[in-house]
Amino acid sequence: MGFPEAATGASTALLTDHYELTMLASALSDGTADRPCVFEVFARRLPDGRRYGVVAGTGRVLDAIADFRFTDAELSQLEATAVVDDATLSWLADYSFSGNIDGYAEGELYFPGSPILTVTGSFGEAVVLETLILSILNHDSAIASAAARMSGAAHGRPIIEMGGRRTHEYAAVAAARAAYLAGFATTSNLEAGRRYGIPTRGTVAHAFMLLHDSEEAAFRAQVDKMGADTTLLVDTYDITKGIETAVRVAGPELGAIRIDSGDVGPLARKAREQLDSLGAKDTRIVVSGDLDEHAIAALRAEPVDAYGVGTSVVTGSGAPTAGMVYKLVEVDGKPVAKRSAHKESRGGRKSALRRHRETGTAVEEVIWTAASAVPERGPNDHELQIPLVRDGRTVDDLPTLDDARQRLRRALVSLPWEGLKLSHGEPAIPTVFV
Amino acid sequence: MGFPEAATGASTALLTDHYELTMLASALSDGTADRPCVFEVFARRLPDGRRYGVVAGTGRVLDAIADFRFTDAELSQLEATAVVDDATLSWLADYSFSGNIDGYAEGELYFPGSPILTVTGSFGEAVVLETLILSILNHDSAIASAAARMSGAAHGRPIIEMGGRRTHEYAAVAAARAAYLAGFATTSNLEAGRRYGIPTRGTVAHAFMLLHDSEEAAFRAQVDKMGADTTLLVDTYDITKGIETAVRVAGPELGAIRIDSGDVGPLARKAREQLDSLGAKDTRIVVSGDLDEHAIAALRAEPVDAYGVGTSVVTGSGAPTAGMVYKLVEVDGKPVAKRSAHKESRGGRKSALRRHRETGTAVEEVIWTAASAVPERGPNDHELQIPLVRDGRTVDDLPTLDDARQRLRRALVSLPWEGLKLSHGEPAIPTVFV
Repeated sequence: MGFPEAATGASTALLTDHYELTMLASALSDGTADRPCVFEVFARRLPDGRRYGVVAGTGRVLDAIADFRFTDAELSQLEATAVVDDATLSWLADYSFSGNIDGYAEGELYFPGSPILTVTGSFGEAVVLETLILSILNHDSAIASAAARMSGAAHGRPIIEMGGRRTHEYAAVAAARAAYLAGFATTSNLEAGRRYGIPTRGTVAHAFMLLHDSEEAAFRAQVDKMGADTTLLVDTYDITKGIETAVRVAGPELGAIRIDSGDVGPLARKAREQLDSLGAKDTRIVVSGDLDEHAIAALRAEPVDAYGVGTSVVTGSGAPTAGMVYKLVEVDGKPVAKRSAHKESRGGRKSALRRHRETGTAVEEVIWTAASAVPERGPNDHELQIPLVRDGRTVDDLPTLDDARQRLRRALVSLPWEGLKLSHGEPAIPTVFV
Repeated sequence: MGFPEAATGASTALLTDHYELTMLASALSDGTADRPCVFEVFARRLPDGRRYGVVAGTGRVLDAIADFRFTDAELSQLEATAVVDDATLSWLADYSFSGNIDGYAEGELYFPGSPILTVTGSFGEAVVLETLILSILNHDSAIASAAARMSGAAHGRPIIEMGGRRTHEYAAVAAARAAYLAGFATTSNLEAGRRYGIPTRGTVAHAFMLLHDSEEAAFRAQVDKMGADTTLLVDTYDITKGIETAVRVAGPELGAIRIDSGDVGPLARKAREQLDSLGAKDTRIVVSGDLDEHAIAALRAEPVDAYGVGTSVVTGSGAPTAGMVYKLVEVDGKPVAKRSAHKESRGGRKSALRRHRETGTAVEEVIWTAASAVPERGPNDHELQIPLVRDGRTVDDLPTLDDARQRLRRALVSLPWEGLKLSHGEPAIPTVFV
């Protein structure tokens, strides 16, 4: 039968809004489809009160564009539903993106107006990519931006991403990737392990406890199978008795206990004392259950060794989309922009650099267009865009997912200290339009 | 190369949490994997202040379960990463779900505790489905629940779903399905058109306006291609001039104008007057731009003919996940439940019916277990679960997506009037546990 979410095979071409193709049809018809254009992806603002955003998804975007092809299956669907005319169908049959793409590397920080991705090509070839590019960047960047706040709050303690069940089944896989990029240690999602090589982890759920005739029987089955260095779930019945049984079954070399309910701070403190008194001084304490960056921060003084985070990370912790837009900024080498009083944009293709103090602290994001004077480069400035696609081909040796993790780690260190606060505030550095 | 989100072909088996398989391995090892079990999907509560939830995604769940198979590709991944042992790999190689599933039909309303899906089978075969089932139901039901509020607020005026760019590229397809189920008229998403037969719509974006040398040239290109019965986007520059140009180019038979920015209520009123004065009395007014159910409700008195809704519907309008859980409630025919003080559950397989007054108004949701006395059925009660899978096979002639639309429409009419209010409140009807 073929699960519909996966059955379309490799083409990404219909992950597209109807109007991208009707625009194309009209533009082909009046000859404007060939005009050289520049489209830019940027966020007008950060989610309410956030101080920085994290770019994520670029790697997935490039894969998706490489697979953006109209095969017979896509063409016959468009024909049957009369979305476009025959001339447009022929044009689509030959489609493959032949232009250039530049953008912020994955793991880079972004701020309001940052030109996160710049797509250069004919109107026709660039406009049809809008929906797909935005879907990926808006989702993945939202998750990475939330996850980075959690990683910061965890202050070096590892976080396990385990939110797959709270979001769409494929969004879950992308969310695991974005969270890993943002510093999470592992994921529960096996498909993310397969696709992206992210380490996966997991032991048991409460169902395993309830399946057995007693807590002791469940612990024993688990330890027999996985060894004493496993994580026993001690909160199904009474936590104190659970810990006592856990150490009795696994011995003091028990790897970890997990507490998934209740007020986990005081419970962790009590558990630590009990474990220590039982001689299980190296047994770690893992906590989970509705944690977000604020809950993680509030646990900083508690004897917690690792966090499991689910719902809040896969839903962007209150900001489930990054709100990025894909705007036409240049036609035939000339800047264009809406002039509506209600939603203004800046025309012209933009470049960007980030200025830093000698100490490495970021000072401002400088954005300029071809029409502006190019700002002078200081020794501590760095250009933010890198080439991603040239003449339709993905550039070789792009940064890997691990490179993106490192890049983000360094970028966060470069922020002024108040930029890392979890409270509502202004962007960590100002954006200066030259 | 193969876009990774689609490249795995038909198997859904790794859209799974690691711990489902480690639990299975331990349970196979100690002989408990064969115990007959019942798992239940339910929501402990509705999202903050919501008065009802809408079940959506069941159809996708059944397709996904049919494709839940461990082929060589999945098995070698699990072997290479040592997730489970050889005995478990052999068991998985033969896996196909052979149990029964009952549940609420798509489009049914649900309330806290409603047994939305009941999976009956051996522990092993049922536990491995947890993550996938929850991913689909939590996502699709969240979107449908938000979309139903918007459909109600629109009060018969059509809504176009156009949020694909604001969410993961495959979540977008499922979101379009859920929104259509909840009464939206059309979607912008072409893949949703292909997979689910949902009517798709779209004309042009602001980019098309900016591509052209003038607004008039853009309008002319569009009308030449699509005919006068199209929707012209009039807010790129000055709306009043835009409308004047639009009617000059298309004539008074212009199909519609779209306003996508500004305070769309007063703008629609002004536009209506202007269109009427230009003789374009049948030209419709479509508004879009950050609309949610509250914004739609606030436009009820304005001369708006259709709404375009994006971000708020695909992100669940503040509730991006339905928060449903998958709990083991019965082992070997006996009820089981956590006894932790922090997160209690009700054991035992549940049945549910909804009581109605003679007038058809819903009064309460009654839930009972095998241990309770079966409640008496009145003439206006209806049982809520239907058979979905028998001995591993999806039941024939299940309700279609259109049936689900009709079911939801009728169910919403049955709610007490205050249950349809958009403000924060209690669930529309109480849940009574017998």
